[in-house]
Amino acid sequence: MNLIVLFKDDFLNGSGKVRISGRRLKHVLEVHRACAGDELCVGISGGQIGRGKITHLTNEHLEMDVRLSIAPPPALPVTLVLALPRPKVLRRTLTAASSMGVKKIILINSYRVEKSFWQSPALVKESIERQLVLGLEQARDTVMPEVITKPLFKPFVEDELPAIIRDTTALLAHPQASASCPRGLEVRVTLVVGPEGGFIPYEIEKLTACGFIPVKMGERTLSVESAVPALLARLF
Amino acid sequence: MNLIVLFKDDFLNGSGKVRISGRRLKHVLEVHRACAGDELCVGISGGQIGRGKITHLTNEHLEMDVRLSIAPPPALPVTLVLALPRPKVLRRTLTAASSMGVKKIILINSYRVEKSFWQSPALVKESIERQLVLGLEQARDTVMPEVITKPLFKPFVEDELPAIIRDTTALLAHPQASASCPRGLEVRVTLVVGPEGGFIPYEIEKLTACGFIPVKMGERTLSVESAVPALLARLF
Repeated sequence: MNLIVLFKDDFLNGSGKVRISGRRLKHVLEVHRACAGDELCVGISGGQIGRGKITHLTNEHLEMDVRLSIAPPPALPVTLVLALPRPKVLRRTLTAASSMGVKKIILINSYRVEKSFWQSPALVKESIERQLVLGLEQARDTVMPEVITKPLFKPFVEDELPAIIRDTTALLAHPQASASCPRGLEVRVTLVVGPEGGFIPYEIEKLTACGFIPVKMGERTLSVESAVPALLARLF
Repeated sequence: MNLIVLFKDDFLNGSGKVRISGRRLKHVLEVHRACAGDELCVGISGGQIGRGKITHLTNEHLEMDVRLSIAPPPALPVTLVLALPRPKVLRRTLTAASSMGVKKIILINSYRVEKSFWQSPALVKESIERQLVLGLEQARDTVMPEVITKPLFKPFVEDELPAIIRDTTALLAHPQASASCPRGLEVRVTLVVGPEGGFIPYEIEKLTACGFIPVKMGERTLSVESAVPALLARLF
């Protein structure tokens, strides 16, 4: 936790004083091993970053005087469209994408997405937010990504995706592509990453018909959780 | 498992016929859902890749006729020097690095590496190999990376690292660096990645004195498990 994300409810009525407990307090006590008087890096959800000076610290709660002065780091100009991975991989990938500055993630269906994944507790709003906050805390960011689920492939690709990719470079990560993934882009990108086992030919056809260019990262097929950080680091 | 890695012991006395059981059989039955007559992608450890035609398949074992004809994908020209992460992160990072084509990994100590990590079962030879094989299976590779442990920071950096970095571009991933991580290199690289919480100033000094150039990937501090795929994808 390189930054503690603070929410409106943490502030004591309109002041610059906050009180936190629970997971964040535990981390401060056990990992930072902070004491009263120490300063911690903090930021307000969706807003500025600054320092919090600990004024009171017990095993029950922590109080800080907070001064916020710096803008959060810039976002990546990308919309990540991800075939819903299995729950464990989803959790890690949400945290990784959030830490790298992705602000819009669309989870889609695919033939090779197991139906049970759509019933996973990892898709509950609170669970998704928890993973995203972990990424923000890691990267000293405050701006929560938006996560949208689209459980029907065909209507999403036909009716909604064309508007999403307008004015963006639309790339489909596909290990069998002939083109290499571009590097160091400074344009807005819509990036589609398939399921374990890959998209089926019908899905590749629908996505290329929609305007996506298949690109690969060398000869190697990467797992979703490696592919997402690798693609983002290469693209931007 | 996009490729089944075969070992010498899997071959029935000197023939092109192999017999496997255990984890690999389970995967073929449950994930590939293969039948007798089907062909699977296989490769011999350290050697060529080809196809295995299933001649016999039960819940106890699988027999294949194997023809090998293709070289494994090229390795990345990198030596990865990694401050020993906590066991869970070590396992995932070994698999990710192996899948991306890293062939030499040196696990080192650092002030912020907890002593207990060096006693972890994740460092046992069999455990390391299991994670590396998972990466090879993912990326359709056959060449096992070499993993070396160096539990003493100072003697390693002073006495061994100078010879390791000779004729390589020596880079130290460091979120506070002023230089950006280079892209698309075609030279041999020695890449050092620090622990969670980062190297302490003394360690940074020792590494830069040894010849390492600190480089960063934007303003964001990434977790080790995101940083490794991100750095490798950006460098090569």
